[in-house]
Amino acid sequence: MRDLMKCIDSNTQKFVEDLRRICQKPSISAQNVGIGECAETLREMMQEAGVKARIVPVKDGYPVVFGELKAKDTERCIGFYNHYDVQPPEPLELWDSSPFEAEIRDGKIFARGVSDNKGNVIARLKAVEAILDLMGEVPINLKFFVEGEEEIGSPHLPAFVRENVGLLKADGYLWESDGIDEKDRPTVSLGAKGILYVELEAKGAKMDVHSSRAPLIPNPAWRLVWALTSIKGPDERIRIPGWYEGATEPTDEERRLLEEAPFEEEAEKRDLGLKEFLGGLSGVESRRALYFSPTCTICGFSAGYTGPGSKTVLPSVARAKVDFRLVGAQRPDELLMKLKDFLKKEGFSDIKVTKLGGYEPAKTPVEDPFATRVIETAEKVYGTKPVVWPTSAGTSPIYTIRNWMGIPVASAGGAGHPGSNAHAPNENIRIRDYIQSMKYIAELITTYNQEARPCL
Amino acid sequence: MRDLMKCIDSNTQKFVEDLRRICQKPSISAQNVGIGECAETLREMMQEAGVKARIVPVKDGYPVVFGELKAKDTERCIGFYNHYDVQPPEPLELWDSSPFEAEIRDGKIFARGVSDNKGNVIARLKAVEAILDLMGEVPINLKFFVEGEEEIGSPHLPAFVRENVGLLKADGYLWESDGIDEKDRPTVSLGAKGILYVELEAKGAKMDVHSSRAPLIPNPAWRLVWALTSIKGPDERIRIPGWYEGATEPTDEERRLLEEAPFEEEAEKRDLGLKEFLGGLSGVESRRALYFSPTCTICGFSAGYTGPGSKTVLPSVARAKVDFRLVGAQRPDELLMKLKDFLKKEGFSDIKVTKLGGYEPAKTPVEDPFATRVIETAEKVYGTKPVVWPTSAGTSPIYTIRNWMGIPVASAGGAGHPGSNAHAPNENIRIRDYIQSMKYIAELITTYNQEARPCL
Repeated sequence: MRDLMKCIDSNTQKFVEDLRRICQKPSISAQNVGIGECAETLREMMQEAGVKARIVPVKDGYPVVFGELKAKDTERCIGFYNHYDVQPPEPLELWDSSPFEAEIRDGKIFARGVSDNKGNVIARLKAVEAILDLMGEVPINLKFFVEGEEEIGSPHLPAFVRENVGLLKADGYLWESDGIDEKDRPTVSLGAKGILYVELEAKGAKMDVHSSRAPLIPNPAWRLVWALTSIKGPDERIRIPGWYEGATEPTDEERRLLEEAPFEEEAEKRDLGLKEFLGGLSGVESRRALYFSPTCTICGFSAGYTGPGSKTVLPSVARAKVDFRLVGAQRPDELLMKLKDFLKKEGFSDIKVTKLGGYEPAKTPVEDPFATRVIETAEKVYGTKPVVWPTSAGTSPIYTIRNWMGIPVASAGGAGHPGSNAHAPNENIRIRDYIQSMKYIAELITTYNQEARPCL
Repeated sequence: MRDLMKCIDSNTQKFVEDLRRICQKPSISAQNVGIGECAETLREMMQEAGVKARIVPVKDGYPVVFGELKAKDTERCIGFYNHYDVQPPEPLELWDSSPFEAEIRDGKIFARGVSDNKGNVIARLKAVEAILDLMGEVPINLKFFVEGEEEIGSPHLPAFVRENVGLLKADGYLWESDGIDEKDRPTVSLGAKGILYVELEAKGAKMDVHSSRAPLIPNPAWRLVWALTSIKGPDERIRIPGWYEGATEPTDEERRLLEEAPFEEEAEKRDLGLKEFLGGLSGVESRRALYFSPTCTICGFSAGYTGPGSKTVLPSVARAKVDFRLVGAQRPDELLMKLKDFLKKEGFSDIKVTKLGGYEPAKTPVEDPFATRVIETAEKVYGTKPVVWPTSAGTSPIYTIRNWMGIPVASAGGAGHPGSNAHAPNENIRIRDYIQSMKYIAELITTYNQEARPCL
């Protein structure tokens, strides 16, 4: 093992250049920029590293890059689920170097997507390359499943997973993210909330009219305000019957993890300019809410005149974007139907509901052998107890693998750090974290087979 | 009298050119364009017509152009209250000729402000000029009170009126508007609703944050939605205690006028794309609501992400623009206090309330001698029974004169027609309406003194 780690260290410069190579290929899914070229580059890099790779077309979507490496005498298999697409780099003027130049400064690589998550894809690939260089083979089967639509909500992933269950089979998947926290502790995440994202639209007269006509003309802004209030009132409780069915509380083990997890409440409140959190929450209760509470959030509301000063106008249309975060067994499509039924029953059949996105919540129990191994390996490689989050406040497409294929999924050993600026200007990773991430993957691969657990 | 009307007819071309002269002087109060030059032109034109005119500075505002013409042996006095400022001409690309060229096409003059309301100012002035030309004097004292801030809400008018009560004294004022309706009937308006226009603002974290943090961070969009619902619910009733105190129902005489007034309900609904009016109102009840109901209208609402697709954001700020239309003895500043108190009591002391505008409602009773005279003169000059609106759905700065000085105010004999496009591209008046308006004023002036009613 010491040889393997040494081999990784001695190849640092080459591995950094390899990462720069793919970071220099823009792959902006939201803008359809460079997707095909980046996918081809990734396929080539997999082949060069010794992984058998191919580009798998996705109906109506951007292709998947799929890589496989067979091991002798074992059915066991680790999968890596990542994405090669990146967020748009705008606003460009806030970058200190071009987002697709991948400039190195102060021990960091700066590029759009280097943290989220080309750094992880390449760290994983280079770990395999190092193992092959040194050992000529891998002790366990490996799969690289790299999609190209994660940053636009993975619209074709559900169909792809359903159609490729055999191809994607594995003992467990490592998902894209996590890395090092503020205190240099490795982090592990075992799940994600779900989401139902809708647009609500109310319409009135077919054009904006002078507000003096308000006694006669229905106001869609009022309709929408009242419809929203019917959904959730100032007690923050969602009033749709049955909404909380399947929303589970944390288990004892999860609550223990929440108690152990660091959460800089005061610093966070200061950063946000808040005197207190919603409902005065603090301590473990604020963490419980953050990770285990279903929510209903108005993300946007637009109607009528919103410029400076006053304009006496009665709007023709009003729109609200609303996200519902889901936990446990809550499912977006069932809840979408409940929402529509509820609005009708409350007298708001004039409100048009359009689904803009939906992810199921998904969690892998901390007791799961794959999760256990991922956590133990983090402690071994990083030399310190990892911070384990039983789930996360955000959402993730992992539900397709976790819920539909029953495969455990965890995030660990990522290349990011708290200042990585994912989705923001000057996105970066530190070279030392990138190399450490590679070592984590190398350790996981080379030791995973020391236990017996058959491939599903 | 026949000579006077003939004199007006024979000077049509000159009077049109005079109107074009002032229409060619932009006077856009919202953009501070050309105000001083237009005021000076108006003063010159008054002087040339034989009216003693001066520019009266207004503290922190645009000047008033004030003209006076004394009559012998009478204290009686008619005032004309108008404005020389105009709306911005944008969008320019929708004009068929330059908005400040005052092009004549098809018997119409096209210019920004020609209908609202330079056409009225000059028609009134030219009527006086014709009388002076023919008779050498006027039979009644006249005052021209022409302000320069009407299109931006007359912010300095209240102070100006309070400070110039003596200067502005008159038996009655003719206000700017009205003219000819769809069926060539002259229209008379005797009042206006009031308004309280506010912006409500809610603030949360000091920047937009990822919506996954919703369990901990107050959402200003929700706060504003709930605060608005506390103000008015789906029954359209304003819930603020005491709000309707002073809101009067129409008198029997006003109801009779509403019953007589034409109102093309079906055509209006068709134009608006509505199956029915709010609450299924129709007939005289819809007119009663339009002219006599207090309202609360969301004119605009903005929060968070409002572009295409979805963005998972928790907004930092939410703002709503809300107008309350007032009737009877409702007063904007009293109601502003009631609104603020109410929000505090309902638990919304976090909502900041900013007043953006306020007008009192004002009405002159149809039985008032000035109103009676204005209506009778319309029937005489136009040869058909005028449509008399006891008040209007919109607002007007006339309340300063009507409520504070106790002077009757009416709109009649205006130069506009239903296709005048006030505040819109291709604003215009018909030359024949302009001349008819002049005749109306000439008739009113020359016959007004046939009754005895002293100047206040």
